[in-house]
Amino acid sequence: MAAKPVLYSYYRSSCSWRVRIALALKKIDYDYSAVNLIKDGGQQFSEDFKVKNPMCQVPALFIDKVSLTQSVPIMEYLEETRPEPAILPKDPIERAKVRMIVETITGGIQPLQNLQVLKKIGDAGKVEWSRHWIDKGFKALEQVLRETSGKYCFGDHVTMADACLVPQVYNAKRFNVDMEQFPIITRINDDLVLLDAFQVSDPAQQPDCPPQ
Amino acid sequence: MAAKPVLYSYYRSSCSWRVRIALALKKIDYDYSAVNLIKDGGQQFSEDFKVKNPMCQVPALFIDKVSLTQSVPIMEYLEETRPEPAILPKDPIERAKVRMIVETITGGIQPLQNLQVLKKIGDAGKVEWSRHWIDKGFKALEQVLRETSGKYCFGDHVTMADACLVPQVYNAKRFNVDMEQFPIITRINDDLVLLDAFQVSDPAQQPDCPPQ
Repeated sequence: MAAKPVLYSYYRSSCSWRVRIALALKKIDYDYSAVNLIKDGGQQFSEDFKVKNPMCQVPALFIDKVSLTQSVPIMEYLEETRPEPAILPKDPIERAKVRMIVETITGGIQPLQNLQVLKKIGDAGKVEWSRHWIDKGFKALEQVLRETSGKYCFGDHVTMADACLVPQVYNAKRFNVDMEQFPIITRINDDLVLLDAFQVSDPAQQPDCPPQ
Repeated sequence: MAAKPVLYSYYRSSCSWRVRIALALKKIDYDYSAVNLIKDGGQQFSEDFKVKNPMCQVPALFIDKVSLTQSVPIMEYLEETRPEPAILPKDPIERAKVRMIVETITGGIQPLQNLQVLKKIGDAGKVEWSRHWIDKGFKALEQVLRETSGKYCFGDHVTMADACLVPQVYNAKRFNVDMEQFPIITRINDDLVLLDAFQVSDPAQQPDCPPQ
């Protein structure tokens, strides 16, 4: 029997959450290994973790005897090796559209509020900075979703795009982005968070989430 | 006969360059439509361009009767619809490793020095800022390439990862990053820039490149 996958994750990392959603959608059972990005100067930099993942990043997924990092490649890998239920459509143009939504978030919005960037910006400016980029990115995304969305980001099936959207909306709320500007994003997010795969993967449900 | 694809591009945009490389590798003939990201406050925001691409971004590729944006989704689309020559390996784990290199650059390094981010950082700080993130990203990348590289980023075949590497090294040089720290990246880049697909797609060879 193949070993159970291990996910190295931090409860509040939006990139970790994307992978937790994909694993839950595909009903892949895994062990959770918490990596605290803040404690001890960041446990991802510890010698112990470096051996597991020289990139010193979460998420990292140990699966099929290899360690994979970066959320989008991990989701693409899961789709190629565990195709059901699918998180990408079959048609190449439709796949491209889902991936466009994914990259709008993963390449255009999220990288500007990761922990290290916010550290460099500093406490005084980090809320304004984050809000600025999420606001800008969501304006573009809202327009894209006007064309692509049904019940979810792309039509009526849950895709990789949805796995990226919900953690980004969670971040937006943390930074007090005015979500009333984005009725489509809000509607889709509100429907998604009711689904099992999004509930079990929620930061508050992770073993490393501190008691509220 | 299918209409010739049109690439909306800016000669110095590294994301545009990635797509030009992929098109050249796959020998796909296309028309070049220049979008000046600086002139007139950014021609990508013009009403004329908005009709073609509501995202107001380059690159945008009009192909097979649709307009696609975001460099990675475009490259994935080209791979799915024009599979030869391949720019991804066949094996899922190997594909994941190539995509990990891709996302390290497209999600981890480049978004922090796009034009709009540099505008927000301001002229006084933008060189130090860019150098900081490229330096940090290249340190991680150098370590990854130690495991994955052959003649190129992943083994001896040119992949999507190489299409992302060369434009990022070009940016690193613009910001005077000390490339001596990165012997593997440097060696791979030096080999890649000799290839036809990288030469024809070079910023200096584009119709919108101003005379030097």
